[in-house]
Amino acid sequence: MSEQSIDFKVHAREGEARAGLITTGRGAIETPVFMPVGTAGTVKGIRWEELESPELDARIILGNTYHLWLRPGIETIRACGGLHKFIGWKRAMLTDSGGFQVWSLGALRKITEEGTEFRSHIDGAKCFLSPEISMEVQTALGAEIVMVFDECAPGEASQEEARRSMELTLRWAKRSREAFDQLQEYGTARRCERVNDVRSAGLEGDPLATASGSATRQALFGIVQGAAHLDLRRESLQRTVEVGFDGYAIGGLSVGEERPMMLDVIEEIAPRMPADKPRYLMGVGTPEDLIEAVARGVDMFDCVLPTRNGRNGQAFTSQGRLNIKNARYVNDQRPLDEACECSVCRRHSRAFIRHLYQSGEMLASILLTHHNLAFFLDTMRRVRQAIRSGQFAKFRRECTEQLSSGLG
Amino acid sequence: MSEQSIDFKVHAREGEARAGLITTGRGAIETPVFMPVGTAGTVKGIRWEELESPELDARIILGNTYHLWLRPGIETIRACGGLHKFIGWKRAMLTDSGGFQVWSLGALRKITEEGTEFRSHIDGAKCFLSPEISMEVQTALGAEIVMVFDECAPGEASQEEARRSMELTLRWAKRSREAFDQLQEYGTARRCERVNDVRSAGLEGDPLATASGSATRQALFGIVQGAAHLDLRRESLQRTVEVGFDGYAIGGLSVGEERPMMLDVIEEIAPRMPADKPRYLMGVGTPEDLIEAVARGVDMFDCVLPTRNGRNGQAFTSQGRLNIKNARYVNDQRPLDEACECSVCRRHSRAFIRHLYQSGEMLASILLTHHNLAFFLDTMRRVRQAIRSGQFAKFRRECTEQLSSGLG
Repeated sequence: MSEQSIDFKVHAREGEARAGLITTGRGAIETPVFMPVGTAGTVKGIRWEELESPELDARIILGNTYHLWLRPGIETIRACGGLHKFIGWKRAMLTDSGGFQVWSLGALRKITEEGTEFRSHIDGAKCFLSPEISMEVQTALGAEIVMVFDECAPGEASQEEARRSMELTLRWAKRSREAFDQLQEYGTARRCERVNDVRSAGLEGDPLATASGSATRQALFGIVQGAAHLDLRRESLQRTVEVGFDGYAIGGLSVGEERPMMLDVIEEIAPRMPADKPRYLMGVGTPEDLIEAVARGVDMFDCVLPTRNGRNGQAFTSQGRLNIKNARYVNDQRPLDEACECSVCRRHSRAFIRHLYQSGEMLASILLTHHNLAFFLDTMRRVRQAIRSGQFAKFRRECTEQLSSGLG
Repeated sequence: MSEQSIDFKVHAREGEARAGLITTGRGAIETPVFMPVGTAGTVKGIRWEELESPELDARIILGNTYHLWLRPGIETIRACGGLHKFIGWKRAMLTDSGGFQVWSLGALRKITEEGTEFRSHIDGAKCFLSPEISMEVQTALGAEIVMVFDECAPGEASQEEARRSMELTLRWAKRSREAFDQLQEYGTARRCERVNDVRSAGLEGDPLATASGSATRQALFGIVQGAAHLDLRRESLQRTVEVGFDGYAIGGLSVGEERPMMLDVIEEIAPRMPADKPRYLMGVGTPEDLIEAVARGVDMFDCVLPTRNGRNGQAFTSQGRLNIKNARYVNDQRPLDEACECSVCRRHSRAFIRHLYQSGEMLASILLTHHNLAFFLDTMRRVRQAIRSGQFAKFRRECTEQLSSGLG
C-alpha cells in the first residue's frame, strides 16, 4: 500500500528514554505523550476548547469502540460524518478496539475463537464483537490510530492460561490486520471525500488541524500480551512484530498486578519493541508510573486516572495526591498545587473546591478534572524537555522524590 | 452616610422600557440585565472564565444567603476574605436574603414576628433566620447589592393572608434597613481593608474589576409583596419607598400564579417604582417574560431557567424550546439554534449533545448551560440595543413571534 498512515521519528534519547514526533493527518504529536481518555465521545467534564488551549494542548485523545458502537451506534456516527465530525474534535484520535472492555465485563461475556459474545451494559442486549467487526467499526469511526482486537489475561494468570490467551490474541491480530487492510483499500476513495469535507468545513482557529490533512490511511497498532510471564511477553512481541504493524502496544497491565511486576514487564519488553515505531503502554498510570515507563522506552500513554479521580475528589499534585474531601482543607486558601500554573490553581483555593465537592456541585468535577489533566500533560511536557536537554535522569530522580514528599 | 453604594442612570427610554447603567465598586452593568444564578457560590456547570468571556460577558451574578450560610458557613467565607474572594469571582454580585428559600421549605419552617425557624435541608439541624441575621450574613458575604429579608405569599393568597404577609414584610424591611445601616457604619474600616486586599491580589485580565474599586458601601434593595392583589401591591410599594432603599424589587411572582396575573402585577407596579432607582423582578423568567417585563419598565432579572433546564436537557432557542431527549434529533447535524453564534452552536450538533445527554455525560449539562446562558444574555444585549435605537417595540413584536414559531 503506497499511502502513508502516521510517521514517527525519534529526535533525542537518554538511556532507554526517547523524545520523538508522531505526524498524523491531523497534526503532530510530540512524544512521550499522554492521551486523555474520551470513552463515549467526550473527555468527561471538560470542553474541547480547554483541551486545545495552550495550557493543556492535548494533541491526541482516546475514543472507545465498545462504548461508541453500543451508543450512539455506528449508523449515527456515519450519518454525522465520522467520529471527529460527530464530536467536533479536530485533532488526532486513537480508538481502542473494545477487546479490553468486553473482557472487563467478566461474567457477562463469553470468549470463543470467533470473537466475544456479551451483554450490553446499557440494555442487556446480546452483542458480538470480533476482530473483523472491531476493524469495521474503527474504520467507520475514522481515528488516526486503530488498535487490533485482543484478549487480555489477568495479572495472576498461569503460564498455561496466559499462553492460551496470547495465542488467541495473535490469531486475532492477524485477522485484525487482514480485515483492516481490506477496509483501508476499500475506504480510500471515501476517505478522500472525507478529508475534503474536513477542509471545507473550515478548521479556522486550530492551526494543528489545518497543518496537514492529506488523504492518509489509518494506522494499525498491534498489542503485546502474556500476563506476567516474561517469556510469553517476549514471544508475543516477536510474533506480533512478524505480523507487522504501524506501532506496538503493551496490553494487559494495570489489571490488578503488583507494581514491581508491571515495571518488570515494561522493562523486559519496551526496549525490545521496534525502535522506529511508537511504543504505547495501555491504561497506565500514575505520574510516577509514566515517568518510570518513559525511562524504560515507552512513548505513548492513556489513563482514566486524571479524569476519574478528579470526579471523585482527588487532585494529583507535584507533591503527591490530595483528597479534597479532607476536613483539613476547609479554610485552606492555597491552590490545589502551589507549584501549578493552570487556570484552576491560579484562581481557586482548596477551600472553595472542597465546598463545591461537599455541595455536590458539578464545578468540583470540572475544576479537578481540568487541574489533573493540566498536571499530567505538563508532566509529559517536562519529561520531553528533560530528555531533549539530556536531563531526564535528574528530572526522574527529583520529580519522583517530590511526588512522594507529601503535601504540607 | 456620605459613602456612595451603587449609582444608576437611565440613558434611553421607549414607552416604559428603559436602558441604563448601574455603576458598582466592581464594574458597570448595562440594564436591562439578566443575572445568572450562583446559588451555592457557583453558577452550576460553568466556569467564571466562560461567564467573563466576551461571548457571555455576565456583569453580575446572584449568590444565595440561605445556601451559603448553611454551607460552607460564614466562618469559612469570612476566613477566605468574603464571598468574592472565596469563589474567585471579581465582578459584581447580588445576594438574595434567604427569605424566599426558607419560605419555600414549606412544612419545614415556622414563621414568627421575630423571623423564621427552619430545618436545614442538608442535615435537618434547627436554624433561625431573621432580618438582623440575614443582614449580618449578607454583610459578611460582601455582595454589591443586598436584599431585605422578606416573606413571600403564594400566588393564590387571599386578601387577608396577603395583607398579613405584606405587613410582616414591611416590618422586616424596616428592621433590615436598620440592621444593615448599623453594620455598614461598623464595617467601613474593614471594607477599606478589603478593597486594598482586592487591589493587591491583582485583578489583571479583567478590566471590569480594575475599572473601579472605591471603598463603597453595599447597596440595599427593598422588596414589594402583596401576592396578586394590586391594591396591596401598590400599598406595599408606597410604604417600602417610604422606608427608602437603593433599589426596589418585585417579589412573590413566578410562585405558581398564572402568567397573565404575573404580567398584570408587573404592569401595575413597575412603572410606579421610583424612576431613578433600579427595578428588579425576582426569579422571572422565560425569554418571553423578560421582554414583556422590560416593556413594563423592569431593569434587572434573575432566573434559574437557563441553568436548571439546561441540566434537564432543554435548550432555549430563538424559535422556542428544544428538548434534546427527543428522538427526532438522533442524527440532526444542526446546532441547537441555527441563529445562535455561541461557541456551543458554532461547534456541536444536536445529535452529539443528544448522545451526551442519553449517555449521562456531564458535558451535556455543560454545553446546554453554556448555550442557554449565552441565549439569555444575548437576548438582553439585543433588548438594550433595541431600546437605545428606538426599535424596542419592533424587536418585542418580532422576537416574541419567533419565540413561538416552533423549531423546524
